[in-house]
Amino acid sequence: MHDIYIYSPSSAVRDKAAFRRGVKQLKGMGYAVTVDEAALTSQMRFAGDDATRLAAIGRAAASHADVAMIARGGYGLTRLLADLPYEAIAHSAAHGTRWVGLSDFTAFQAAVYAKTGAVTWQGPDVVADFGNPDGPDEIMQACFEDLLLGQGEGTGWRLPASEARQNGWETSGRLWGGNLAVLCGLLGTPYFPSIKGGILFLEDVGEHPYRIERMLTQLLHAGVLGRQKAVLLGQFTNYKLVSGYDKGFKFSTVVDWLRSQTTAPIFTGLPFGHVATKVLLPFGAQVDLSVQGRDAMVLWGPLDGRRH
Amino acid sequence: MHDIYIYSPSSAVRDKAAFRRGVKQLKGMGYAVTVDEAALTSQMRFAGDDATRLAAIGRAAASHADVAMIARGGYGLTRLLADLPYEAIAHSAAHGTRWVGLSDFTAFQAAVYAKTGAVTWQGPDVVADFGNPDGPDEIMQACFEDLLLGQGEGTGWRLPASEARQNGWETSGRLWGGNLAVLCGLLGTPYFPSIKGGILFLEDVGEHPYRIERMLTQLLHAGVLGRQKAVLLGQFTNYKLVSGYDKGFKFSTVVDWLRSQTTAPIFTGLPFGHVATKVLLPFGAQVDLSVQGRDAMVLWGPLDGRRH
Repeated sequence: MHDIYIYSPSSAVRDKAAFRRGVKQLKGMGYAVTVDEAALTSQMRFAGDDATRLAAIGRAAASHADVAMIARGGYGLTRLLADLPYEAIAHSAAHGTRWVGLSDFTAFQAAVYAKTGAVTWQGPDVVADFGNPDGPDEIMQACFEDLLLGQGEGTGWRLPASEARQNGWETSGRLWGGNLAVLCGLLGTPYFPSIKGGILFLEDVGEHPYRIERMLTQLLHAGVLGRQKAVLLGQFTNYKLVSGYDKGFKFSTVVDWLRSQTTAPIFTGLPFGHVATKVLLPFGAQVDLSVQGRDAMVLWGPLDGRRH
Repeated sequence: MHDIYIYSPSSAVRDKAAFRRGVKQLKGMGYAVTVDEAALTSQMRFAGDDATRLAAIGRAAASHADVAMIARGGYGLTRLLADLPYEAIAHSAAHGTRWVGLSDFTAFQAAVYAKTGAVTWQGPDVVADFGNPDGPDEIMQACFEDLLLGQGEGTGWRLPASEARQNGWETSGRLWGGNLAVLCGLLGTPYFPSIKGGILFLEDVGEHPYRIERMLTQLLHAGVLGRQKAVLLGQFTNYKLVSGYDKGFKFSTVVDWLRSQTTAPIFTGLPFGHVATKVLLPFGAQVDLSVQGRDAMVLWGPLDGRRH
């Protein structure tokens, strides 16, 4: 029986019913679930003060669980980066614990990769994904189960027709990325991974396209985009255009402009972000990216946490 | 008679009545006002496409006006940074043109300083400040007139009691800063000034304190705050706390936390930001900062654009 350790490194869990649904769902899938003693702690907007959340991360690292999963994202990890137990985290990852999460957790993953090279997983959380009142998304759930069974060796999606490569195209590199705002919030710091020849994926929620463009432009001007073999744009959701002000400026405008500024191939539609249907993606793993017609595929091969 | 050249390097002017009020106000103050031919251009959310806005900046640089003033901020300068006419801008600044603006204009000012060392001015725009339907703020207007008369040699404000230095305190360094989000959006790029021993001032609008904290933490982790002799926090306005979620997390929480993380002295209350009552501040000038009791003072001495 696989076991899952649930802890709260970022914002406080306010929707406790969703948290309970998520825990119940995971148990119903046959996992042994351990909830960290501080998972439901609250201090202002955080799941406990910094020391409490650092201790929870330490317990997750010591849990030997197959998966260490965040209760939810929000905000809080940036404050902890100078004090994370990097060696313990890397040790647990090397011995089979998959660290899974997204959004604010991107700060943790980027810093852990920058400091130790350990691979972690961008993927679901407890509250929004497994605690979804409609039940967890089937694709997300299947990807999660594949991870635990060691059967998930890649993921595929359908590209827009304009991005099709009829004669095929492929590359390989280190997969990394996550939440655009959180990642850009690490630029210039020791917690931003220095990855050349990588495959960078990005998503965000609640950010107007002009802000998405400003952040992508920061990555461009910092030389990050130009150093990647490909950029994969996931789901950018839950923003509002302003009629009479934006006047045609929209997300696709941003993508078009970015393509005019960099030679790095940019593909869209990656099923990842603040959406129910999301895949799991290994932050820091070497992967192959192939495009055939409108079919894109990222393959990482067998990754059990012990080999990469 | 002093002359003012008005141009639009960022977002389109939507409130044309406010723009006209601003121009009329400046003329009424006795200035010769020239409005750039593209000042009211609109392309999507921008004041014209990138080439149009770059050309407008070029005309402002060639205008020999005493002041080159932005119509408004918004968003757009980040896209232009690779192509700004840096030498022409620095040349005009060295020959008496004061470049004045704020908000998105911070990207221009930071990049111009990083590339050329030219001093520019954080200060009012046409639409929001001189076009204010209640008339321009008296203090802002007086500071602006002082700038043109060469009489403004510093600015002072009242600190909160908790920040008072009864025995006095002073330092000196290069003054720089502006909009926090725009400045952080340059970290890691060649457009972020490398200033050690400086005096950094920051303001922002419409950013929740958790985002302000995330950005200040980026400056902290990047080593920027630790390299400054002082940090001056201006006005952070127009955000909404979320009752039942933030639970006591607020702007002062952010300041307290930041003080626990850096030894750089942090002073608040600088009258600058997205507010009517704002002073003008020379980005890149050597200044003296003194605090006596609750009175803070920044002095830059005579700066006519030719000497710094």
